Amino acid sequence: MPRRTPVVALLTDFGTIDHYVGVMKGVLLSICPAVRIIDLSHQVTPQDVQGASYLLWASYAYLPPGTIVLAVVDPGVGTSRKILLVKTRRNVFVAPDNGVLDLVLWKERPREVLYLREESRFVQKLIGEQISTTFHGRDIFAPVGAHLATGRRLSSFGTRARGRSIPQPFIDRRGSNIGPRILHVDRFGNIITNILGLQDGKGTIVKALAIGNQIVSAWISTYAEAPPETPCLIVGSSGLVEIVMNQKSAASFLLSQKPTELKIVS
Amino acid sequence: MPRRTPVVALLTDFGTIDHYVGVMKGVLLSICPAVRIIDLSHQVTPQDVQGASYLLWASYAYLPPGTIVLAVVDPGVGTSRKILLVKTRRNVFVAPDNGVLDLVLWKERPREVLYLREESRFVQKLIGEQISTTFHGRDIFAPVGAHLATGRRLSSFGTRARGRSIPQPFIDRRGSNIGPRILHVDRFGNIITNILGLQDGKGTIVKALAIGNQIVSAWISTYAEAPPETPCLIVGSSGLVEIVMNQKSAASFLLSQKPTELKIVS
Amino acid sequence: MPRRTPVVALLTDFGTIDHYVGVMKGVLLSICPAVRIIDLSHQVTPQDVQGASYLLWASYAYLPPGTIVLAVVDPGVGTSRKILLVKTRRNVFVAPDNGVLDLVLWKERPREVLYLREESRFVQKLIGEQISTTFHGRDIFAPVGAHLATGRRLSSFGTRARGRSIPQPFIDRRGSNIGPRILHVDRFGNIITNILGLQDGKGTIVKALAIGNQIVSAWISTYAEAPPETPCLIVGSSGLVEIVMNQKSAASFLLSQKPTELKIVS
Repeated sequence: MPRRTPVVALLTDFGTIDHYVGVMKGVLLSICPAVRIIDLSHQVTPQDVQGASYLLWASYAYLPPGTIVLAVVDPGVGTSRKILLVKTRRNVFVAPDNGVLDLVLWKERPREVLYLREESRFVQKLIGEQISTTFHGRDIFAPVGAHLATGRRLSSFGTRARGRSIPQPFIDRRGSNIGPRILHVDRFGNIITNILGLQDGKGTIVKALAIGNQIVSAWISTYAEAPPETPCLIVGSSGLVEIVMNQKSAASFLLSQKPTELKIVS
Repeated sequence: MPRRTPVVALLTDFGTIDHYVGVMKGVLLSICPAVRIIDLSHQVTPQDVQGASYLLWASYAYLPPGTIVLAVVDPGVGTSRKILLVKTRRNVFVAPDNGVLDLVLWKERPREVLYLREESRFVQKLIGEQISTTFHGRDIFAPVGAHLATGRRLSSFGTRARGRSIPQPFIDRRGSNIGPRILHVDRFGNIITNILGLQDGKGTIVKALAIGNQIVSAWISTYAEAPPETPCLIVGSSGLVEIVMNQKSAASFLLSQKPTELKIVS
Repeated sequence: MPRRTPVVALLTDFGTIDHYVGVMKGVLLSICPAVRIIDLSHQVTPQDVQGASYLLWASYAYLPPGTIVLAVVDPGVGTSRKILLVKTRRNVFVAPDNGVLDLVLWKERPREVLYLREESRFVQKLIGEQISTTFHGRDIFAPVGAHLATGRRLSSFGTRARGRSIPQPFIDRRGSNIGPRILHVDRFGNIITNILGLQDGKGTIVKALAIGNQIVSAWISTYAEAPPETPCLIVGSSGLVEIVMNQKSAASFLLSQKPTELKIVS
């Protein structure tokens, strides 16, 4: 039986101005010429681990089964921070151990969790011994991802990571003991919070949100329903509560005013 | 005989900051692993149907024959707006019925024009029954495009749309009864109008254009010909009259002054 | 033996707002359906030949062997400027003859250097006779690249270029007679200079740099080492000296102050 076409998905804060992403793709295609590459985003705000974690949460379930995800938002590059290799039911994730996988791992029970053994002879032979201190996307993540795409087993690359725990990231029932947060602001100015919509999609545990001095309490189910000039609440396509406006940026409308702290209104 | 490699082209206003485009590609490759994807643009100004219509006009003829084009600029997402499926000589277009296909359809005689039957059991079985109200790119356009790419017939997806008419979009002869408009401003600050160049490429029906208080009357045929600090007219690579400057943004030069209404000078 | 999958890499200043890059890909896939495309960058500052030359320098060695590189930063498009076809040990480069290949050619001894013969009947039959004066990316570079990708020999396209010389671009030893320059500012605000790091990666011939009134003299080897609010020097992943800050833009910090002339401090 022919093997499935290997797919690698990339999520970085490398931007698209520079050659960084192109070089990663060059390395991927050099090692695994058959690989198909999906760009999730390269415009994560530099070093915004939380925003990257949200983008991964919102996208991983839609990738082809078997997709290898390289999430390179890595302010600690070149330091002794560890690199995680995680196998879930459908995917393999390779990322720095800085929280970027937290939202996904809160949902997906991992089958294997390893730390990359960069010092291993075997790994060095595969990925090369000349590793820069500033561009592990090119020198570690891309070659590891490419070798996984060629079919190498995950266990060749790492040592089992024990005792890691994932903090509760979402507000999903009244009395959850974490506070509301803005996870991400998207291109349209929609403000995505860490509050999960209810399973039936018909609301959430919150009635309204306060952002700075403004209370947002109108719930809608399509953007077009929103009255003009009125920020509204919606359960967005990733299952989280978003503050949105109709054909307008809620972020420009709301976040320019200080203070912008997010509060739940009961 | 082997089937042609399926190609899907994407045009959206989703931007590249978020996961939206990556998720569409994940869905496409999940359903049709062989598909090749061309990004036309994802940086259409949010909800700018006219700009998207121009980008499609300027690009569709250069896509491989058989390319399926998904044009998702869709301010009415989740409302009762319809989704069009259009077959032309070389392409299939899938887009909301909001005018985004108007420029292409003014040029290309359609062979089939259908409305997507979202309520059909058959369609729901193919594309899934859980459809968000805010992200039809993921939940409708990508799966429909992917199934078309696998070879499914267009007619399985829709009902014939009758009696649609396309408004005249371009000025192409003196006395045309529509006014001059700015269709798009490109990355270089070139201002693209709705005035068609003559067939022989040697000019147009207009002599000069006025934009605000400034009259632009110098015609050039390469950017390098333009005198310094002087906005000029050129028939651009898409066949339309553009206002351009040499190594400088005509839009920054001209559009910052109010008023910026475009007029033909005879 | 099956031929290698053909790969084309693109470097342009076309941006990603417009259809320009998508159209080039449409042309590439129309002529060579098997081609794989790598985007190096499309966000070179318009007409910034030097910045493009740096991006090419920093990326070409990581592309799959045989990759055809199309570098379209071309302020002279439509004039009599020539188009270069250069074969090196691993790659073919197609670019306007305006310096964009200088940094690569300073490193890579070319095996063949040709000028494209646009006026040749053979070339016109391959790439088409209708060539716009403003979009050679679509009308010349993409079709030439695609035909090279299908296996056509380079020599079919051009005439040998003789006597071209490449100016020394880098400062690589004390007493080099060219001055320090800023080649590029990357997404993170890292300022990339034309000063080569030493072969052993342990420093350079310079001790410190002055940028405007500010002297930068702290050398680091990972971003995380940099003290807060302090611009530092690092030999970056492309082998050149960069001025960087920890989780902050050195360019915003330093380049907003005038004057910003770069000087070596001995």
